[in-house]
Amino acid sequence: MKLTVVILAAGRGKRMGSALPKVLHPVAGRPMLAHVLELARRLEPVRICVVVGHGGDVVRAAFAGEAIEWVEQREQLGTGHAVRQALPLIAEADARVLVLYGDVPLLPEGPVRELVAAGNALLTARLPDPAGYGRICRDAAGVFTGVVEDRDATASERAIDEINTGVLAIEAAVLKRCLPAVSNDNAQGEYYLPDVLPLAMDRGHDVQTVCTGDPGAVLGINDRLQLARAEREYQRRAAEALLRDGVSLADPARFDLRGTLRCGEDVFIDVGVVFEGTVTLGDGVRVGPHCVLRDTRVGAGSEVHPFSHLDGASVGAGCSVGPYARLRPGTTLADRARVGNFVEAKQATIGVGSKVNHLSYVGDATLGAGVNVGAGTITCNYDGVAKYQTALGDGVFIGSNSTLVAPLAIEDGGFVAAGSTVTRDVGRDQLAVGRGRQRNIDGWRRPGARRNDNDNGNGNGNGNGNGNGNGNDEQGGH
Amino acid sequence: MKLTVVILAAGRGKRMGSALPKVLHPVAGRPMLAHVLELARRLEPVRICVVVGHGGDVVRAAFAGEAIEWVEQREQLGTGHAVRQALPLIAEADARVLVLYGDVPLLPEGPVRELVAAGNALLTARLPDPAGYGRICRDAAGVFTGVVEDRDATASERAIDEINTGVLAIEAAVLKRCLPAVSNDNAQGEYYLPDVLPLAMDRGHDVQTVCTGDPGAVLGINDRLQLARAEREYQRRAAEALLRDGVSLADPARFDLRGTLRCGEDVFIDVGVVFEGTVTLGDGVRVGPHCVLRDTRVGAGSEVHPFSHLDGASVGAGCSVGPYARLRPGTTLADRARVGNFVEAKQATIGVGSKVNHLSYVGDATLGAGVNVGAGTITCNYDGVAKYQTALGDGVFIGSNSTLVAPLAIEDGGFVAAGSTVTRDVGRDQLAVGRGRQRNIDGWRRPGARRNDNDNGNGNGNGNGNGNGNGNDEQGGH
Amino acid sequence: MKLTVVILAAGRGKRMGSALPKVLHPVAGRPMLAHVLELARRLEPVRICVVVGHGGDVVRAAFAGEAIEWVEQREQLGTGHAVRQALPLIAEADARVLVLYGDVPLLPEGPVRELVAAGNALLTARLPDPAGYGRICRDAAGVFTGVVEDRDATASERAIDEINTGVLAIEAAVLKRCLPAVSNDNAQGEYYLPDVLPLAMDRGHDVQTVCTGDPGAVLGINDRLQLARAEREYQRRAAEALLRDGVSLADPARFDLRGTLRCGEDVFIDVGVVFEGTVTLGDGVRVGPHCVLRDTRVGAGSEVHPFSHLDGASVGAGCSVGPYARLRPGTTLADRARVGNFVEAKQATIGVGSKVNHLSYVGDATLGAGVNVGAGTITCNYDGVAKYQTALGDGVFIGSNSTLVAPLAIEDGGFVAAGSTVTRDVGRDQLAVGRGRQRNIDGWRRPGARRNDNDNGNGNGNGNGNGNGNGNDEQGGH
Repeated sequence: MKLTVVILAAGRGKRMGSALPKVLHPVAGRPMLAHVLELARRLEPVRICVVVGHGGDVVRAAFAGEAIEWVEQREQLGTGHAVRQALPLIAEADARVLVLYGDVPLLPEGPVRELVAAGNALLTARLPDPAGYGRICRDAAGVFTGVVEDRDATASERAIDEINTGVLAIEAAVLKRCLPAVSNDNAQGEYYLPDVLPLAMDRGHDVQTVCTGDPGAVLGINDRLQLARAEREYQRRAAEALLRDGVSLADPARFDLRGTLRCGEDVFIDVGVVFEGTVTLGDGVRVGPHCVLRDTRVGAGSEVHPFSHLDGASVGAGCSVGPYARLRPGTTLADRARVGNFVEAKQATIGVGSKVNHLSYVGDATLGAGVNVGAGTITCNYDGVAKYQTALGDGVFIGSNSTLVAPLAIEDGGFVAAGSTVTRDVGRDQLAVGRGRQRNIDGWRRPGARRNDNDNGNGNGNGNGNGNGNGNDEQGGH
Repeated sequence: MKLTVVILAAGRGKRMGSALPKVLHPVAGRPMLAHVLELARRLEPVRICVVVGHGGDVVRAAFAGEAIEWVEQREQLGTGHAVRQALPLIAEADARVLVLYGDVPLLPEGPVRELVAAGNALLTARLPDPAGYGRICRDAAGVFTGVVEDRDATASERAIDEINTGVLAIEAAVLKRCLPAVSNDNAQGEYYLPDVLPLAMDRGHDVQTVCTGDPGAVLGINDRLQLARAEREYQRRAAEALLRDGVSLADPARFDLRGTLRCGEDVFIDVGVVFEGTVTLGDGVRVGPHCVLRDTRVGAGSEVHPFSHLDGASVGAGCSVGPYARLRPGTTLADRARVGNFVEAKQATIGVGSKVNHLSYVGDATLGAGVNVGAGTITCNYDGVAKYQTALGDGVFIGSNSTLVAPLAIEDGGFVAAGSTVTRDVGRDQLAVGRGRQRNIDGWRRPGARRNDNDNGNGNGNGNGNGNGNGNDEQGGH
Repeated sequence: MKLTVVILAAGRGKRMGSALPKVLHPVAGRPMLAHVLELARRLEPVRICVVVGHGGDVVRAAFAGEAIEWVEQREQLGTGHAVRQALPLIAEADARVLVLYGDVPLLPEGPVRELVAAGNALLTARLPDPAGYGRICRDAAGVFTGVVEDRDATASERAIDEINTGVLAIEAAVLKRCLPAVSNDNAQGEYYLPDVLPLAMDRGHDVQTVCTGDPGAVLGINDRLQLARAEREYQRRAAEALLRDGVSLADPARFDLRGTLRCGEDVFIDVGVVFEGTVTLGDGVRVGPHCVLRDTRVGAGSEVHPFSHLDGASVGAGCSVGPYARLRPGTTLADRARVGNFVEAKQATIGVGSKVNHLSYVGDATLGAGVNVGAGTITCNYDGVAKYQTALGDGVFIGSNSTLVAPLAIEDGGFVAAGSTVTRDVGRDQLAVGRGRQRNIDGWRRPGARRNDNDNGNGNGNGNGNGNGNGNDEQGGH
């Protein structure tokens, strides 16, 4: 059966108080409209038409390159009018048309499939407080007769608690024939899409209703409060799906997924972790509290410690990352590698069992296996113009607080003494030392002891061996 | 109409289990009493009297300098007795007296204004479980006749679900005349303030009741459980107000505001962010997960990445801060500046487009425009006695792991080689190099290879060119 | 009265989707079974038998060394069959037997004590939706007559909302006599433990039921959704207990305790804090947002700032820790010490009033009183083979970005100039300087200005005084 999906996405969303068109506001990190498009695509339609109006160019740009037929609705004259703009794109040969809404991102797939299967059918819901919504009218036998908008409803109609969600399926031929006949003779002077259904019935077509059990998921999002609620509902579902899939979450209410998370067996995710993009966690991976992982793969048995931020990283098996590790795009950890606290890695390959455990920056670098990078080590990959590579062979040992000036190669077994600045390549098993010689100076007066004497503020004595340390020689941070 | 507000704040709050007087316990970062005072001030009274008892000196000190008339209640003989201590401060010329409670911080303004407008009126509430509260007694016609305390109530009175909140308004003249007539002839031997109302009625005054629809907000806080609930209720309201104002919150239940937050259009605040003091976020600002912002301004289009801690900072437009950035008081970022991970800035001005991206400390420093501070750079602003300034001109480039010993000036276009310690000023477009010369030493034996040979533990060979690296030369952190 | 507790822990827990036996899945950081064992021990039984089956070896290993008599159930033929495996361990002289379940970790103590006191008694609960559970059958007089499993129940039995929790107490003699008589003549072909009770009644024993008011706490955990709910219920109780005990929690719903937390008076714990192991917080301690504390003691009046991670640390009184401080095992802070941002300490003793405030690594070190360690300081404690100690005397001042190569002693009052690498001991009040001499080079062309000239890529000129800085001399991180 050929299906056309029409998605109405022309509303301005004034109550969002935003410069962004409403349907681009994100739920779970993606525009609301993207969620609706995803649902539409799962139905494998022959075409998807999106009707845009306010901010239409911005909406189109956000989905550039996707298989969407864009339709413009220049005036906002109601949902019936909106769908009419798409009529020229719909062939009679298309068996069915499904109308969805760009601001209803959490619509469940089941009832929608029911609608499509039914042919001509409207999705309804029962609300404790139906005020403001179009009511479902039925005759004495309970047969659907039409929708009356809240503003047009009589007192007894207002008492009806079954409401119109706006989502409907209709045979293409019926739509093409009946929609032009819908009038705007109502309080708002708008063309209401559901009015096409009584017209269809008049012509002898059977029209059904499908009442959803989850009214919260079928209502449009009109302000940020509703947006926040939809976000939480999405996350609740995502957490529950993972739990059912055998993932342990320390607190399902403190879990955020904005993309796709694939987990192996016995994964544990602690509180406050945020996932973005595509993240894959292998068997037995543990992610500690308050981490952020984006577009990252973590191998089996690895542990990500608290406060870590992984973005575009590939972490092998049996690794230890963090706490407070930041892995930036292009970082690859081989198995059993360790990246520790206050370490930033970027475009770096860290070999099997290698360690960068403390306060270091490793960028544009390749580390072999069994490398130990001491605390406070910096790879100097940038000279203000271009980036250069640092290559450390297997078993290299970098003493703490070293400065590795790229381009630089240190061959297997190379050893850099702590505190060295290394600007030339180091050969196999060589020791590189590049630091000042220590002098201990007796009888030195501390800053402040006698502020005006000639030891203070005079020429700089470091490196000359004469020992006149001065005030600007010895400072710490504060 | 002249209004006197009397706030009862003498209770010890034994169930708080605290050395702090109860009314000083904070909700949203401010003492409960401060919230009550804020409500009182919105009513523009001629005077505010606060009755203190337990810990009165501490309470007074917490509000030193504020326009409050303090009244001491030496003995705790009931609310009527407490208000009596304030009587000498109340002139008959004051039309009205409003009695509030220092431990009811979330009282809504509307019903309170209703009370004051009514003249003689008591705020009541209906509770599903009224046990423990004074009940509102009414005659057959439903007219208020008085309050009976729980301990004094008959069984049928105990069945009444409308309770006394204690909050009342009364004409000053009536109060002054009737309050001294209130007796303590009851189970507790206390003087109950609401007993003044039947006395007023006896004298022909009209007394009304106002029943609030939000009982949770009118009950006193007596223990930490109630305090925590009040905190959450406050935060729920604060989050909702922001959402209605067009701010996007990833999770309203994980948002904390302890002060004032002003937001431009299309601000996004991720989960777990805590705001303290006065924070202003410009249009389009995004604050990532798990940040703390205090007394900070962030300009339009800037992004604060996860785990950042901003305190007393001013961030321009189009800036990028964090992740893991700590901006301390006196830090100013000009437009398009970037402060990255594991960077601490304090009393620092960072110019347009300048970057301090990695593992650096920038304190007491001024950076011009287009400055690049390499990873691991430290401004040494402190010599153990005083602080000194570092001034970097436009376009300065600081190589990584450099040590900048203040006072220090590097003029426009100055360039510091990586790993340098810079103690003397650097002129315009000069290159400063201050580091040891690298030596590569062949045939070096690693520590542990032969622990007892004469290379190990001997005199220190670094800097002398003879190459006898020793065990204490080459160490990393672990 | 002698009590034997039998804990059934043989279930596979297929719905957990885990390689770990179900009863080892943690609630609050400890295996479910550990919680049940803790409850059992509070009853002071003469013996605890745990019946294991699936993964029994793994379960035994997790509790190795504990006073448990392990019983193996090779086939899973029902709860009656499971308890029968333990019969040989139960002496008739034991007055009572209590049967608990390894997957019911939150069982409250009160009803369990009631059961034991009652002699022969079954714990029941009323559920709104009892489907799937065994129902409690009673005669017309309301006297308990037995349990019918869901699969064996008639329609009218299925309407009963009182269910069997499985937890029961029984006299040892009765159990030994009646259990072998329990048959498996039911839909599942299983031996159901509660069937022992009607048999006991047949023999004239009085059997009671105890209906718990907290059905959520008595049901077994069978999947990760139930596990997550149990975790939250545990944490809710833990938070409430602390609040009642006078601890202030910013948000009880964002508090995690996996172990034991002891608090002094007026402790404040901000949002998102995770406690593990045994943590003790002294009077007036404040723990900021998003911290992790494990096996740590914090003294009175100390403040732990946001994003700090303390593990195995002992913090004195009046200290300031963080933000972003990481204290690893063996770190001891004396009173009024300060450890600041991006600082890692490990096996370090930091003396009274000493400060390590910024971007430093302090490992295997002893700091005296009044020491100031400047920003970017690294103790180099590791040479790739062994660890060495750094000892700093009282009043030592370490200039920023210094590299302290252990083993190293700096005596009282020693002073290290900023940017120094220190490899030899420093005497009392000596100044140590160990860094390159600064040269300022005029007319230097920046990298990229003319990429192919002979200044670029030539031999390294640093340290030789001739000033030919080159491209790989001056690089920052990016």
